[in-house]
Amino acid sequence: MKERDVRAVILAGGRGTRFWPLGRAAKPKQFLRIAGRDPMLLETVRRIRPLAPARRMTLVADAAQTRLARKLLPRLPKESFLVEPLARNTAPALMLATARVWLDNPEAVVAVLPADHLIRDEARFVKTLRAGIEAAARERVFVTFGIPPTYPATGYGYIRHDRGRGRKLGGDIFYPVQAFKEKPNPAQADEYLASGDYAWNSGMFVWRAGVFAEKLAVFAPDLKPAWAAIVSALRSGGAAKLRSAFALAPALSIDYALMEKAEGVLVADGDFGWSDVGAWSTLLEIWPRDGEGNAVRGEALALDAKDCLVWNPGRLTALVGVRNLIVIEAGDALLICDAALDQKVKDIVDTLKRTKKLNKYL
Amino acid sequence: MKERDVRAVILAGGRGTRFWPLGRAAKPKQFLRIAGRDPMLLETVRRIRPLAPARRMTLVADAAQTRLARKLLPRLPKESFLVEPLARNTAPALMLATARVWLDNPEAVVAVLPADHLIRDEARFVKTLRAGIEAAARERVFVTFGIPPTYPATGYGYIRHDRGRGRKLGGDIFYPVQAFKEKPNPAQADEYLASGDYAWNSGMFVWRAGVFAEKLAVFAPDLKPAWAAIVSALRSGGAAKLRSAFALAPALSIDYALMEKAEGVLVADGDFGWSDVGAWSTLLEIWPRDGEGNAVRGEALALDAKDCLVWNPGRLTALVGVRNLIVIEAGDALLICDAALDQKVKDIVDTLKRTKKLNKYL
Repeated sequence: MKERDVRAVILAGGRGTRFWPLGRAAKPKQFLRIAGRDPMLLETVRRIRPLAPARRMTLVADAAQTRLARKLLPRLPKESFLVEPLARNTAPALMLATARVWLDNPEAVVAVLPADHLIRDEARFVKTLRAGIEAAARERVFVTFGIPPTYPATGYGYIRHDRGRGRKLGGDIFYPVQAFKEKPNPAQADEYLASGDYAWNSGMFVWRAGVFAEKLAVFAPDLKPAWAAIVSALRSGGAAKLRSAFALAPALSIDYALMEKAEGVLVADGDFGWSDVGAWSTLLEIWPRDGEGNAVRGEALALDAKDCLVWNPGRLTALVGVRNLIVIEAGDALLICDAALDQKVKDIVDTLKRTKKLNKYL
Repeated sequence: MKERDVRAVILAGGRGTRFWPLGRAAKPKQFLRIAGRDPMLLETVRRIRPLAPARRMTLVADAAQTRLARKLLPRLPKESFLVEPLARNTAPALMLATARVWLDNPEAVVAVLPADHLIRDEARFVKTLRAGIEAAARERVFVTFGIPPTYPATGYGYIRHDRGRGRKLGGDIFYPVQAFKEKPNPAQADEYLASGDYAWNSGMFVWRAGVFAEKLAVFAPDLKPAWAAIVSALRSGGAAKLRSAFALAPALSIDYALMEKAEGVLVADGDFGWSDVGAWSTLLEIWPRDGEGNAVRGEALALDAKDCLVWNPGRLTALVGVRNLIVIEAGDALLICDAALDQKVKDIVDTLKRTKKLNKYL
């Protein structure tokens, strides 16, 4: 396999509220050390290194998050950080990042990776991604990775694909994508899981820059003016011109704006221990647990207490007679939450936003 | 009623472990601001002021607690602080405190008050205590106050008394005490409550110094050598002599060493909103609660959360989907405890004592 020109595009933005009070507006999930030893953004960068060297890495985020990312990755050159002129979902951001690669080398392969996912089996991840890169280099396709579903999740988008028509490409099997599906209701999710034809949408994509430009023109012609303006602004223009160009693109996800309209989309099984680390309770599946099922960062003393998740590093937490609790100590704010209700953390954050005297806890 | 020479003796020692992690070895319950606005010791001193001026107050505690007490009460003269030479329960401490009064004026009335109780109705308390002082001044009796029981508590000692033989003395009714009873088992507690002849032992006592000396000689002759040695050490001797004298007294409570043996003990109803504030969950009955039944020091945000007690001053606590929880944030340690199991906080402290690397949290 010849050496490919691979460009990693890491989506380093995102403003999740589900990890409050540790995750804050000024320090979202990808900057937290909750899943592995290091912040998830750093682990994402490290994970992709075998495929794309640092000089071929681009981190896309808004200005504030870019400042955080540069502090975290001081050795990456300034050019690696691409600041979104506006917060407009992933379609404009990925058009911008891809256009920049396209101007440099239309044959370069772009690998798009969210910065806030956990991958447990890194070797398998690299192998799968390498196959995807090979597939995208050889054929005029979009490549994505579907996570084999383990339960009828309603919190993810799904990819329907044809398992009867798999083809081996670059060491892995790729299936034609039939449809991208929004987050299902519980009945649909049951159906999806039972059918065997659906995988969770991981939000990871691989494409050749030139193929992206072609498919965009053919399958999403409404994006053409924005694409042209972005390319023109990158060629000759300042921040203001780029900002105007960016604003021409719809504030949509790339899935919605382009992927689901395009033909020639392939999916491989993303069987590498993926987790989107969607809420505090997910960490109960990720962190090591003690004999009582408690997962603790910090010191803990449990009396008749089971299956609790505790974040209180450097301090002692005593748990007495409690079960399935999430306990997060974050300096100025403390969260005590039933693990089954951790989706309500978003409601807490909403209340903080609405209540002026509580704004400081955002 | 003529002006009596009243001496308040406040038992300022005690090393409760039930308010961990806020209460520590170096800062026990009476120094915490948990029941009222001020530490309980300060509130005890303030409460007794209408009956005994500052110069007639004695605070008994060990050396470390005396240092804390002096910081808390900088205006009290040095002589008000009586350091126990050894930690030996209340009998030796009260013999020492009473001997000091006795040497000064055998007719002085000593009012003994624990420093870690809550009294909600202070006016009534002062009225009741004044009657007790008057009774002790007029008759050769020990006076105590029994708390009318509201439930079959197993955590208190009880006083059996003869309700058919009440006598009015100094504005209140006093009943002859028939027996002091240790903490009962649940069946006994039910019996005590049903009979109407029992009250909770509040640990408050009133006696004339001379009457104390007499009754001690008559009813607890085994205490006589210690009493004589203490008196002698106070008259002429240093710390070493006092320490040896103190060590002659048995390490027993005054109830056990003297009260339950003595004749001529009267009890009045202590109907002044007493609470011994025995554990965290007691505060759920004392602190104001919000509409959801949560009692909070600090800022709180509750979503589907009820009947929780939160100590986290100056910070935000978010409670989601939890009930009957005790949440205590104390800097280096955090307690999350089912309110029904708060007696297990003692077990936590025992574990801290046994575990060397956790000693720092004591």
